[in-house]
Amino acid sequence: MTVGIEAGTALLPPPDGTSGVIAVGDVKLENGAVVPDVRLAVQRWGELSPALDNVILVEHALTGDAHVASAPDNPAPGWWEGMVGPGAPLDTDEWCVIATNVLGGCKGSTGPAAPAPDGKPWGSRFPEISIRDQVTAEIALADLLGIERLAAAIGGSMGGMRVLEWMVGKPERVAAALVLAVGARATADQIGTQTTQIAAIVGDPAWQGGEYHGTGSAPVTGLAVARRIAHLSYRTEAELDHRFENLPQDGEDPWDGGRYAVQSYLEHQAEKLVARFDAATYVLLSEAMNRHDVGRGRGGVAAALGSTPVPCVVGGVDSDRLYPLRTQRELAELLPGCTGLDVIHSRDGHDGFLTEAEQISLLLARTAELARANR
Amino acid sequence: MTVGIEAGTALLPPPDGTSGVIAVGDVKLENGAVVPDVRLAVQRWGELSPALDNVILVEHALTGDAHVASAPDNPAPGWWEGMVGPGAPLDTDEWCVIATNVLGGCKGSTGPAAPAPDGKPWGSRFPEISIRDQVTAEIALADLLGIERLAAAIGGSMGGMRVLEWMVGKPERVAAALVLAVGARATADQIGTQTTQIAAIVGDPAWQGGEYHGTGSAPVTGLAVARRIAHLSYRTEAELDHRFENLPQDGEDPWDGGRYAVQSYLEHQAEKLVARFDAATYVLLSEAMNRHDVGRGRGGVAAALGSTPVPCVVGGVDSDRLYPLRTQRELAELLPGCTGLDVIHSRDGHDGFLTEAEQISLLLARTAELARANR
Repeated sequence: MTVGIEAGTALLPPPDGTSGVIAVGDVKLENGAVVPDVRLAVQRWGELSPALDNVILVEHALTGDAHVASAPDNPAPGWWEGMVGPGAPLDTDEWCVIATNVLGGCKGSTGPAAPAPDGKPWGSRFPEISIRDQVTAEIALADLLGIERLAAAIGGSMGGMRVLEWMVGKPERVAAALVLAVGARATADQIGTQTTQIAAIVGDPAWQGGEYHGTGSAPVTGLAVARRIAHLSYRTEAELDHRFENLPQDGEDPWDGGRYAVQSYLEHQAEKLVARFDAATYVLLSEAMNRHDVGRGRGGVAAALGSTPVPCVVGGVDSDRLYPLRTQRELAELLPGCTGLDVIHSRDGHDGFLTEAEQISLLLARTAELARANR
Repeated sequence: MTVGIEAGTALLPPPDGTSGVIAVGDVKLENGAVVPDVRLAVQRWGELSPALDNVILVEHALTGDAHVASAPDNPAPGWWEGMVGPGAPLDTDEWCVIATNVLGGCKGSTGPAAPAPDGKPWGSRFPEISIRDQVTAEIALADLLGIERLAAAIGGSMGGMRVLEWMVGKPERVAAALVLAVGARATADQIGTQTTQIAAIVGDPAWQGGEYHGTGSAPVTGLAVARRIAHLSYRTEAELDHRFENLPQDGEDPWDGGRYAVQSYLEHQAEKLVARFDAATYVLLSEAMNRHDVGRGRGGVAAALGSTPVPCVVGGVDSDRLYPLRTQRELAELLPGCTGLDVIHSRDGHDGFLTEAEQISLLLARTAELARANR
């Protein structure tokens, strides 16, 4: 068992990816509310440099967490397994990679499923938050650790939203960035699907007004429907049809109550999510994504993006039907620190930012170069 | 009030679009089951020619019905308002246009919400059906009316599925056809979204195993979620964002329990559907669409399509994300009677087959020409 190091006034978890929790204090939200005594789950890979200038913050997507890569206390593969480690694209011989679970998350950070100060689950009492509020909590963490400036902020999808908020809100504190598979603000289509998913969850009687924690019941039917909607949007029409066509699930007959192969696949995806994720957190984070707008209170998207000089790589997946390439093209055009859009070629759609390891590696390496040059 | 005419052994409703119901007898299904005493809601525009050779059958989509255009007994606009009438693209001075509500439907035909022989609603006792079974019922109707051969079969989406079944199953009985916004079989993506919509409905406790008819309760929450999922798939990302962006609904604040404009739009679409459509019918017809495969039992799609000489027009919408253009391209390539794919240019996605009146008019006129030439 490795030992954590004290950075600033907080104790960082060990450099092998082991999990820890850091209390970052009260977090004041955009809407004026305050979340007291916020805790963020943190994982770290690699050593902090004496000058504290080698931190790469890796930001997870909606149902992700701080577990970017496997670690001794959790050998399960991380969501970017192979991207972090000695000699990996994010080379921990050079960089100290830090990942947190977002404010409002259910993977060790303060959120609806975590205890409020009264010891009971926050539940529906947890305030509405924004992506910007999540970054406020991350800034508090950086302050605690004494990290004046990130070498890089990196993320895709909801993680990319936080990267954009770092770049625009605290440009002096980010040396370089990688923004993947996201846009400057939520689109109508994204809000349309996310509000529909929320409707499926809160329409489940087990939702109980968001106060189901500790009741022995949870809106698993609604969450499963939400995940099935979402998962379809993460993939592509062509890839799904290539894999599943209209074939029945092995050994089942759709003419007699059995399932189709694609139906079984989606049910399986839903079951996995339901087993590992909290429904109220899913609703809260979906609502935060609906609010994603890097231009809010900053004169609009063009002014906001134009205001940040942070050197950055912007990547999008050519087959992404949820965060279409036009939204990354806009980022690439409006961000002064971007030299052009990097298109990831994939049949996997939005999920390409997770599955196309080789192409992602190249973008990570380019981001590390920018970080090195601007450190 | 106009008067119906007796054609064959059945009484056709009047030629002004007025509604009628015709009993077509027992219908034997693909799976061997029999639906006794099937009734089909029918509307007719224009007079039947003495040779009974001028009938154009117009086939509706999932939540459509026989009400193609307004009529004295129902002045509400039809789903193809303006397309049928004297001087219209389907000119009733020349053609006798007939439209039915499908077997399994809830708009006057025999289906889950209609009474079974015992006088109680069919409910969950209604057997599983296929698109082919729906056409079997339509063939029974044509037989009753003494119509040996349709001048044309025309339809989009689920309506296009029935047109394909006519063309391949009874090629000698169709002089011409128009197939819009559909493919040869259900794709994995379509089955994925349709099974997810079904899950939303049957996961609603008010579903009651499909036995909710007459209980004073219905799975309206689940049906509303299903419709929101579906409606998004009928439109396009670009058009939705052009109209709604991430704007709040007028007078509402999404930071304080209010809705987004696109959310309000989808809720409105869902409310309209819930008010006019039966949930069990939605499930039954979605399952029939999952089973759509014109190649089933016929040596596959290529053999089936290659076997029908019916002269036809195949149209697809360039922005359709539910029935993508590749699926119409396949039809156009494999149907010997098709001279090439007609691409409808639209920002509206799948709904383009309903909204692009001018382009649809041209395709209807071309189909009428084929019907005239092959009559």
